[in-house]
Amino acid sequence: MRVGFLIFPEFTQLDMTGAQEVFSRMPDTEVLLLWKSREAVSSDGGMHILPNGTLEDCPHLDLICVPGGPGIGALLEDEQVLRFLRERGRRAQYVTSVCTGSLVLAAAGLLQGYRATTHWLSKELLSLCGAIPSAGRVVVDRNRVTGAGVTSGIDMALRVASLAYGDDMAREIQLRLEYCPEPPFACGHPDTAPAEIVERVKGSMAEVIEERRTLLSRAAQRLPAG
Amino acid sequence: MRVGFLIFPEFTQLDMTGAQEVFSRMPDTEVLLLWKSREAVSSDGGMHILPNGTLEDCPHLDLICVPGGPGIGALLEDEQVLRFLRERGRRAQYVTSVCTGSLVLAAAGLLQGYRATTHWLSKELLSLCGAIPSAGRVVVDRNRVTGAGVTSGIDMALRVASLAYGDDMAREIQLRLEYCPEPPFACGHPDTAPAEIVERVKGSMAEVIEERRTLLSRAAQRLPAG
Repeated sequence: MRVGFLIFPEFTQLDMTGAQEVFSRMPDTEVLLLWKSREAVSSDGGMHILPNGTLEDCPHLDLICVPGGPGIGALLEDEQVLRFLRERGRRAQYVTSVCTGSLVLAAAGLLQGYRATTHWLSKELLSLCGAIPSAGRVVVDRNRVTGAGVTSGIDMALRVASLAYGDDMAREIQLRLEYCPEPPFACGHPDTAPAEIVERVKGSMAEVIEERRTLLSRAAQRLPAG
Repeated sequence: MRVGFLIFPEFTQLDMTGAQEVFSRMPDTEVLLLWKSREAVSSDGGMHILPNGTLEDCPHLDLICVPGGPGIGALLEDEQVLRFLRERGRRAQYVTSVCTGSLVLAAAGLLQGYRATTHWLSKELLSLCGAIPSAGRVVVDRNRVTGAGVTSGIDMALRVASLAYGDDMAREIQLRLEYCPEPPFACGHPDTAPAEIVERVKGSMAEVIEERRTLLSRAAQRLPAG
């Protein structure tokens, strides 16, 4: 199995690294981190990661994964990236995302008529490009597997590992990663977090969300009628 | 607040990246990834990350974090690394680890008489260098904060964020990261995983654990009487 993550300037590294840690432990699996060149890519939190493949020299991918982050804004209008995802996504066994990576899949036309999720702040935007925003931390619809915000990458990738290699392989990886999480607060989702904190986060992101709405509306006009 | 992660060849990237994603969202916080040079460091899963500081040119650190992984074997006998941790650890406000990173802290003499934890496979080894292996996914003893295996880095870092900046700041970060995990199986800890899977993982790691036992016993002989 060959797995390819798209990485890009200002992506959220944990969207990718949580899933990478799971996928890299699947048997006979090669994991590629792909961008336009092999120069280091900087995450939104200032981590520098080296791609080990490029969009141009990339071999066939069995699994595609798109992480999210503030940098998706540029991708939503990047024809090279959207064409790469569209072409590779149509031939891949699994098309996956974490966080706002699903907005990029949607802009590439890969989620038309598919149930999907994304980071809670951006969830309603999914429908602009024909996806069906759906409940669940990990949403599986045929071969599209989308995860909610950032930390869902671990849950999403374990789900894919169980689909691709069976439950026992996913269980073994989960045990090796000692994945029995204990979040300190009941605050990981807007339904359980204090309203004041939800409003503060929403307020800080309002402009970004509006910008994404504009970009996704434009992307929708370029897609064939769903 | 200046945070320094030690990174090293064959470290487990999610040990570091889970915590990095949290720490990099704390207010006025700089996060350094430190190694002997600024050349790319490869994780055990083949991810290449660029350090943004070196052990030699590193400024004062308020928080030290040591991730784990197969590469810790070499660190347990690396006097430059152990001296760096010992000197910086004594002056830091918080001394933290994820997974088997705590074995490196222990070998540096930073856990003598402290309660601590590590990856479940290595837990009993902590006592070889005078630490007190303790229950809990995150163990806080004075300013030492140690996490269990790999994925505990997120829990550990949120705990530190709440200690350093208060519960509301940690809650906000938790909500931004949509950290309401849903592990697919009750299999993240040897107490809940099927015995057969626990034995398979133990068997595959038996030699590594014995090698660590030898290295930690040697490290203990170099420590001052606890």
